[in-house]
Amino acid sequence: MKAFVYDIPVKVYFGENQLGNLGQELKRFGTRILLTYGGGSIKKSGLYEKVVREIRSAGLKLYELSGVEPNPRIETVREGAGMCKEKQIDAVLAVGGGSTIDAAKFIAAGACADCDPWDFLAEGTPVKKALPVITVLTLAATGSEMDPYGVITNLQTNEKLGGGAPALVPKVSFLDPTVTYTVSKYQTACGSADILSHLMEEYFDMNQDLYMLDGVMEVLMKTVIRYTPVALEKPDDYEARANLMWASSWAINGFVVGASKPEWSCHPMEHELSAFYDITHGLGLAILTPRWLRYCLDETTVSKYVQFGVNVFGIDRSLPSMEIANKAIGELEHFLFDVMGLARTLGEVNIEEEHFKAMAQKACCGKEIRGFKTLTPADVEKIYQMCR
Amino acid sequence: MKAFVYDIPVKVYFGENQLGNLGQELKRFGTRILLTYGGGSIKKSGLYEKVVREIRSAGLKLYELSGVEPNPRIETVREGAGMCKEKQIDAVLAVGGGSTIDAAKFIAAGACADCDPWDFLAEGTPVKKALPVITVLTLAATGSEMDPYGVITNLQTNEKLGGGAPALVPKVSFLDPTVTYTVSKYQTACGSADILSHLMEEYFDMNQDLYMLDGVMEVLMKTVIRYTPVALEKPDDYEARANLMWASSWAINGFVVGASKPEWSCHPMEHELSAFYDITHGLGLAILTPRWLRYCLDETTVSKYVQFGVNVFGIDRSLPSMEIANKAIGELEHFLFDVMGLARTLGEVNIEEEHFKAMAQKACCGKEIRGFKTLTPADVEKIYQMCR
Repeated sequence: MKAFVYDIPVKVYFGENQLGNLGQELKRFGTRILLTYGGGSIKKSGLYEKVVREIRSAGLKLYELSGVEPNPRIETVREGAGMCKEKQIDAVLAVGGGSTIDAAKFIAAGACADCDPWDFLAEGTPVKKALPVITVLTLAATGSEMDPYGVITNLQTNEKLGGGAPALVPKVSFLDPTVTYTVSKYQTACGSADILSHLMEEYFDMNQDLYMLDGVMEVLMKTVIRYTPVALEKPDDYEARANLMWASSWAINGFVVGASKPEWSCHPMEHELSAFYDITHGLGLAILTPRWLRYCLDETTVSKYVQFGVNVFGIDRSLPSMEIANKAIGELEHFLFDVMGLARTLGEVNIEEEHFKAMAQKACCGKEIRGFKTLTPADVEKIYQMCR
Repeated sequence: MKAFVYDIPVKVYFGENQLGNLGQELKRFGTRILLTYGGGSIKKSGLYEKVVREIRSAGLKLYELSGVEPNPRIETVREGAGMCKEKQIDAVLAVGGGSTIDAAKFIAAGACADCDPWDFLAEGTPVKKALPVITVLTLAATGSEMDPYGVITNLQTNEKLGGGAPALVPKVSFLDPTVTYTVSKYQTACGSADILSHLMEEYFDMNQDLYMLDGVMEVLMKTVIRYTPVALEKPDDYEARANLMWASSWAINGFVVGASKPEWSCHPMEHELSAFYDITHGLGLAILTPRWLRYCLDETTVSKYVQFGVNVFGIDRSLPSMEIANKAIGELEHFLFDVMGLARTLGEVNIEEEHFKAMAQKACCGKEIRGFKTLTPADVEKIYQMCR
């Protein structure tokens, strides 16, 4: 086990009716608040009204940036950062899912910098300072509410790039499972695929050797597999929504990644899919993940698949290793495509092989992905082909 | 599931050779450092020298308070708080196990208050402010390195009282598993009993209903059960020491207690044992816990024992519930007394029934313990009797 630093100072209000604490928490950071959100869903659900009431009754000054895209664009980040400078904003309040929160993070960073916000992602310009980010989460998926990362899309350059810095960790996040009752079946499924992928990117690692953290990851995966069907069947099941929401935060907030730091594999492959085709992140991950697992399975890696199959899916430990491994991948496919009903192939979402070569090059940054197994652009192209 | 607030802002340096970051971290808080520690063990192991070198090479001014007791005394806390005031200390550095860290917390609080530090524990005087506490952990047990609590003993009043406040959470903790290589078999076993108890106090709760957190608690219990025998057999096994150390922090840092907040049962019963007899905390817990479980087992609680037996000890789920429950308690006893070799009865540590009635009254604060099952002083006395 390598040495690591654990440092996740976000304060989380979890549960129903916690929004009454929003005003006092915002006040800690100043008086001028930029509220960012996506489309109209928070207006339809009544959440927008509740949030605005909290802000106003705390005597704070409210500015708004709406229309943050599902794969948030750099143009929106630039606009938000400009507003922060112009209006002398003290804190950015993101009400939404991962996209809105990711955008808020780079808005908050851009507000404190002279460079173009895209430089943080494309040029490696370090984020030294950012306005405080506060979040009200509406979707269990990316874990952005409790982590220092964000992903921003530049459609002009066909790039979807991620970045992170300690200054971007939200100061306070409000996680109310009842807010996710109105999340559609499709988005619920995509969110769960995203959570699972965060866990599997860390879990499938031949250098991972902290028994305790592997066990925690298995519990989080089992939580997703148990409660997603419940939430799909009964969208207002509190326990299901609560378990999915809290699992989404803990899948990626830094706890389970303590022991080892593998480079992620499916995420860079998927980022190219949604950079080129603007598909939903979780859907892309669902299509890619089982193929990636099949591609990486061999005698040197099979032991990890056995652990996964036995501990997560309860497959009989006495079977031959390769049989357990293949059964485990089959169980995962069954969950993603049959139980959750997500599209099984890239063809089903109208993605053909036209850009596979270019996407594979970009996913590997022209070199390779040093993850669970090291993947060259040729390997990645083969995995894309397996998804057709 | 009730609403909760998660807020554990401690920064943890985990792993070997992390102590090189101590100086820069201390510097963040000022220049005048009070180093607190217990007996001579950190001098014997060489840790004292390393810590002092770090402090000096960072150009900080060092003051020392040694001799913090295993069940830390209020007199020591008073002395430390007085030193902080007199020497205008900026931060308290605790190098040791839970006792040293607990003492440091109330020294840090006393340094910022006009009252007697015992008032924080006995009078309910709130801790509003405290000096920053930094810890270098030497024993996997209490979790004090990552939580806001501490327990202090007053032998004059035969009281051992706990208290907590957000201001008492350590700012930075250094967890180097190699530091625990020199922990004796007995202390290792007592530490593991303490970790298990923290988990069981939360886990055995008929209102606990967050599947995910129950799963995490089961993983942490399994981690202790798997790695304690390894550490007893081979004290310098890094993986064993690392798993035990990280499990100790997460058993009590606030993560697993998110869903429900039962009143603890064994801890108040044990605190009376060590207040009256000054026995090791973990040993007292080991003797009490299985008896408490037997006492609370009935038709209304058996389902939790079944979950425990099946998920933690792998007992066959198809057996009758009561049989699983009794087997599970038996497995726990086997682990505590046979595998870890701790004393099985109070008689073995020369504790007779003389004070049972008084201790039971005090454990219940004269009323009752509203935990897994509500316990009156008469119930507690019966549990003490079962331990003879």
